[in-house]
Amino acid sequence: MSETIGFIGLGKLGLPMAENLVASGFAVRVYNRTAEKASGLVANGAVLAASALDAAVAGGVVLSVVSDDTALLAVASEEFCAALGAGVHVSMSTVSPETSRILAERHARFGGSLVAAPVFGRPAAAAARKLWICVSGDESAKARVKPVFDALGQGVFDFGGEVGAANVVKLAGNFMLTAAIEAMAEASALGEKNGVPREALLNMFMTTLFNCPIYVNYGKSVIAADWDTVGFSNLLILKDMHLVQRTAAESRAPMPMVNLLVDRYLRLIANGRAGSDAVSLALGAAGDAGLDW
Amino acid sequence: MSETIGFIGLGKLGLPMAENLVASGFAVRVYNRTAEKASGLVANGAVLAASALDAAVAGGVVLSVVSDDTALLAVASEEFCAALGAGVHVSMSTVSPETSRILAERHARFGGSLVAAPVFGRPAAAAARKLWICVSGDESAKARVKPVFDALGQGVFDFGGEVGAANVVKLAGNFMLTAAIEAMAEASALGEKNGVPREALLNMFMTTLFNCPIYVNYGKSVIAADWDTVGFSNLLILKDMHLVQRTAAESRAPMPMVNLLVDRYLRLIANGRAGSDAVSLALGAAGDAGLDW
Repeated sequence: MSETIGFIGLGKLGLPMAENLVASGFAVRVYNRTAEKASGLVANGAVLAASALDAAVAGGVVLSVVSDDTALLAVASEEFCAALGAGVHVSMSTVSPETSRILAERHARFGGSLVAAPVFGRPAAAAARKLWICVSGDESAKARVKPVFDALGQGVFDFGGEVGAANVVKLAGNFMLTAAIEAMAEASALGEKNGVPREALLNMFMTTLFNCPIYVNYGKSVIAADWDTVGFSNLLILKDMHLVQRTAAESRAPMPMVNLLVDRYLRLIANGRAGSDAVSLALGAAGDAGLDW
Repeated sequence: MSETIGFIGLGKLGLPMAENLVASGFAVRVYNRTAEKASGLVANGAVLAASALDAAVAGGVVLSVVSDDTALLAVASEEFCAALGAGVHVSMSTVSPETSRILAERHARFGGSLVAAPVFGRPAAAAARKLWICVSGDESAKARVKPVFDALGQGVFDFGGEVGAANVVKLAGNFMLTAAIEAMAEASALGEKNGVPREALLNMFMTTLFNCPIYVNYGKSVIAADWDTVGFSNLLILKDMHLVQRTAAESRAPMPMVNLLVDRYLRLIANGRAGSDAVSLALGAAGDAGLDW
């Protein structure tokens, strides 16, 4: 590819994504707060940018994968939007639809476009180019960055021109996956308190009615009580559940399950599990039932 | 098959199951409270029994598929257990593990065995021999009725010798499937209040992270707002959710999601939807959000 791509944010998802772009032949200008994380990319031909601003090339394409709304709004400052000018900012973080609308308006003042493109997939899926990408925003901007998506994921779902739409879908999906973990946890606690090991119970469902990635992958972690292989921490998923609550409140959509999940994560974090994987949600129902998982 | 099978209960699931047994060559003695439902079976060679008691042959095999614990305990009376003697009663209804334990003890007094064998699958799956069968109970009794299961389902999962174990797994599964409907409903309400049609949102998840029978089949019904194709009524699923609550309470396993689901079903039933399909659970989150599905 001849296009130069700015890339901001080398976290658990961002780093393998940037590596795939370099491997696919894109010229990449990379920025991360701690520059050492970029060393492997630079060794493979990426250019190290001195700042987020420096990763944006006038009229170019820049991708951002940062931790939250505040970080994204700080990265995509007025100066950044001015530097990018008539380019395209592909925002791949899990943020609120409201943040995407604010940023789209900010870029538009300088002739640029925001494409919201949050992704589903754990770090291993990112490395394997198996991400699912939800997109929304300006049609010509989406068309321009299609080759970038093809290098990162296994499929793109387009939710239309309203730039916040893809963020709503991403939040809905993160809610659905945590609800699935909670359901497996409550069912497993019921089973174990009645003499049915969770391995037997979950294995049946994982191979029949619920034989899909979310139940199979998280079900394996629940069975193994593996909270320390961290694809996605409790702190990050709690941030997402709070975004779901806020978006639900602003749009007047009561979601009682979300409130339950937020309380579960707050209790985990209050008890020393901020950095455990999000699947440790399962400890809530188990602990309530007096089980030692 | 040379074995004669007693068959009690020709409801939405029982009837296609009995038809499959007849089609597989089993000699079937069938009983249903309203005898007309048996007319097709009798035309194909089944024998009409005059009562549940009359369906039980000494030392034989009898299957029951009835609506709830009370009906099952009434069918499998002392006289019934005496008539079956050293035979095997295969109890395929969704009932509490406690009811299975009571019945197993009752049969044992006459030298007989209870095999708990609740099934997963809607009526179409029963007709297509695509049920998933959970079994528990005496090992030699389970071995004896294995050919019966092979004629009814696509797979058998054995949860061991404790007779109530399969019932616990069945209750856990019915809870997990209603939790999945609620999660899809809340996610869809969030989407629609933010401009994303539930068809677009659910179709993405049904083809990616949640591409399994429960999400695909119930997701289609949520998209179509089809509550009138009744595979499984709200009254029956509420009965199951109450069994989950009771089993959870007796075994000291708090399940907050179950309590939420019970309230959703109570509200539907209080508002004229006792006979709608269980997927109408989705109306709760939609109605709360002011959506007219």
